[in-house]
Amino acid sequence: MRKTYNTEILSVGTELLLGHITNTDARDISELLSKIGVNVRYHTVVGDNPQRLRECVEVAKGRADVIITTGGLGPTCDDLTKQILAEAFGLPLVECAAERASLYEYIRGGKDFTPNNLLQALLPEGAEIFHNLWGTAPGCAFEKDGKIVVMMPGPPNECVPMFRRYAIPYLKKLSEEQIVSHSVRIFGMGESAVDQIFRDEMDRMTNPTMAPYAKECDCLLQITAKARSEEEAEAMMAPVIAHVKERLGDVVYGMDVECVEEAVLPLLLKKGVHFAAAESCTGGDIARRITEIPGASGVFVGGCVTYTNEAKARLLGIDPALIEENGAVSYPVAKAMAERVRALTGAEIGLGVTGLAGPDGDGVHPVGTVFVSMAVEGETFVRELHLGEKRTRSFIRRMAGNHAYDMMRRWLTGLPVLLPG
Amino acid sequence: MRKTYNTEILSVGTELLLGHITNTDARDISELLSKIGVNVRYHTVVGDNPQRLRECVEVAKGRADVIITTGGLGPTCDDLTKQILAEAFGLPLVECAAERASLYEYIRGGKDFTPNNLLQALLPEGAEIFHNLWGTAPGCAFEKDGKIVVMMPGPPNECVPMFRRYAIPYLKKLSEEQIVSHSVRIFGMGESAVDQIFRDEMDRMTNPTMAPYAKECDCLLQITAKARSEEEAEAMMAPVIAHVKERLGDVVYGMDVECVEEAVLPLLLKKGVHFAAAESCTGGDIARRITEIPGASGVFVGGCVTYTNEAKARLLGIDPALIEENGAVSYPVAKAMAERVRALTGAEIGLGVTGLAGPDGDGVHPVGTVFVSMAVEGETFVRELHLGEKRTRSFIRRMAGNHAYDMMRRWLTGLPVLLPG
Repeated sequence: MRKTYNTEILSVGTELLLGHITNTDARDISELLSKIGVNVRYHTVVGDNPQRLRECVEVAKGRADVIITTGGLGPTCDDLTKQILAEAFGLPLVECAAERASLYEYIRGGKDFTPNNLLQALLPEGAEIFHNLWGTAPGCAFEKDGKIVVMMPGPPNECVPMFRRYAIPYLKKLSEEQIVSHSVRIFGMGESAVDQIFRDEMDRMTNPTMAPYAKECDCLLQITAKARSEEEAEAMMAPVIAHVKERLGDVVYGMDVECVEEAVLPLLLKKGVHFAAAESCTGGDIARRITEIPGASGVFVGGCVTYTNEAKARLLGIDPALIEENGAVSYPVAKAMAERVRALTGAEIGLGVTGLAGPDGDGVHPVGTVFVSMAVEGETFVRELHLGEKRTRSFIRRMAGNHAYDMMRRWLTGLPVLLPG
Repeated sequence: MRKTYNTEILSVGTELLLGHITNTDARDISELLSKIGVNVRYHTVVGDNPQRLRECVEVAKGRADVIITTGGLGPTCDDLTKQILAEAFGLPLVECAAERASLYEYIRGGKDFTPNNLLQALLPEGAEIFHNLWGTAPGCAFEKDGKIVVMMPGPPNECVPMFRRYAIPYLKKLSEEQIVSHSVRIFGMGESAVDQIFRDEMDRMTNPTMAPYAKECDCLLQITAKARSEEEAEAMMAPVIAHVKERLGDVVYGMDVECVEEAVLPLLLKKGVHFAAAESCTGGDIARRITEIPGASGVFVGGCVTYTNEAKARLLGIDPALIEENGAVSYPVAKAMAERVRALTGAEIGLGVTGLAGPDGDGVHPVGTVFVSMAVEGETFVRELHLGEKRTRSFIRRMAGNHAYDMMRRWLTGLPVLLPG
């Protein structure tokens, strides 16, 4: 862009202020904007109250160049966003014939007809209209008084795909520069260690730039370049990405992915390898994670959740004496779980996880002790983890799953599966 | 409280503006405050930038009586919240001896010593100090210039328990009135239907009040009363709650719980009943949901995730001819899954789920078709669901799980398990 556009995301909805829903729209929009180099300076949430909304719009006009609203575009009397934004910028609302026709078509087909629904076809004069393929309320964008206003519906399953489809290209068009960003995802090295490795380089870099960020159970290094074209930006980043990958080595699990399983799925597909999982403390979360991704059935056959010792015996056929002798949270039991689920399902890879996710311990191991195992043809690997007694149950479960996926990734790419030390 | 305190939650952290993390603190604090009747009017997010933070504090002072900050209390130079809030209210920062001693003790024991850590012991003069049992940075609260300021650390696993332990009692002390709130959770009736039933009554009510809210896959009716004591408030609400429960009947699954499984767990425990689950399209999510709750091992034995037809045969022993004949997404297969997992594990209840979570269909059924079954001694129930082709994968999976838990709840409490029609 010609200049640095300061952006404010203004989310409208009393339910956000009551804590009934989380403002994931602001998070998702921020992430999409950061990838095209737009600086989000503020998030604001205000309720469905005309006076307070009006005041928030005035505050936003005073400190931001781009105002992005979410919510309040629906058909009820609570939905005030369009009216108040249009008023604040001195624009009348005019009916969009195409939107009216599309709403009418939709309403005729549905049971929830109210004449109010047609109010959704009223839009600020001269605005670019964003047709909603995921719901009924259209979004829009306009430029006025040196400001850019973008309005999005509130439901995340409408807001986010619409923002990606319409608002990102709209904002990019305003720009003479193209900003492109990639994230290098890292598991097995913390954000501060990554920061330490690249601190001096990062301080010297201006374009591309590089910055590390911590996620719940892993971290990432974001690399961003500005250029006249996307191709040029990519070319500027290529050597930096290559350098980063080489320096970090095998802790890099993927580029522009959200989680380890997303990186592992195509590796499994490419090699035609399937896996199965036997889960104790993760309680089905490893299965849930891969099956969140469409197409999981090409790589994941299934598995067992064996939350009790009896289930380990009955579902997996693990010898109760093995558990008796070693305890359920042990190296031999983890090993047997992976091997048994592999044999039972016929998958090429069997995973096994047993551990203590807390808050209660077993009197032997501290909370956070987890054994993660992977059985393949002729070999079984086991990682013993001590994730920390102060960690939450959900952290321990997620981290254990990350290790299981990381072991598969390493094995599939010919890297050492076990961690040093 | 003597008056209606308008509250603003001011969250400080560049990572929020980059979309790397979601502002769950604001959601959780809002929810806790709504239960004691405090009106949250605004959420604001600003980065780790002194000038912009200063300006946001001025905006908040101008429109709110209570300012709650989250984040920016740590030991790094990015952590500015205390300094800037203290400055805005003309208070010096003074060292708290007890916090210094506790930090010193903590740091000596750890590896991450930096002298900066001790900066965390500096707190606004006269503030009430909230010792952090979940991390290192203390929180605090003070009253000045007719405003109340509460500061909380940013990490949700510190912020939320600290807010509950310290800030809620602190804010309640300021009040002459006690506000108490209960939520009646509902599954099987939508928010708009609930609204319709109680609309006239709600419009007439002033104390207690009542309001319906939609959640992702269920809804709730929140009932709130103000009185001089909690006991009095409870007494005022009791007949309203009884009336609501009677009017709504068996779609009410619990009070003050977050999800169906949280309501089912104590029912299972009380009856000494265990369950197991055979999951296809939910992919382990039913198991994950119950095992998120500590103590799940008392009611959940485990189960199988049978994502492929072969896994249904190999892990559950389902006759491949049954699948061949009816398709994997069918009444007979769902029934067999529940019965087989019950037999295999010896649990009193077996659940089975098979369906199409999308985005791809099977060429026979539309996306959103799910069969949910429950096998108990001598009987197996199956619900056939059509959740809608436009729904997301995660909605369909969650809704299928809700039905499975709802079937158990109904059976355990002697209600009809199958839905009318």
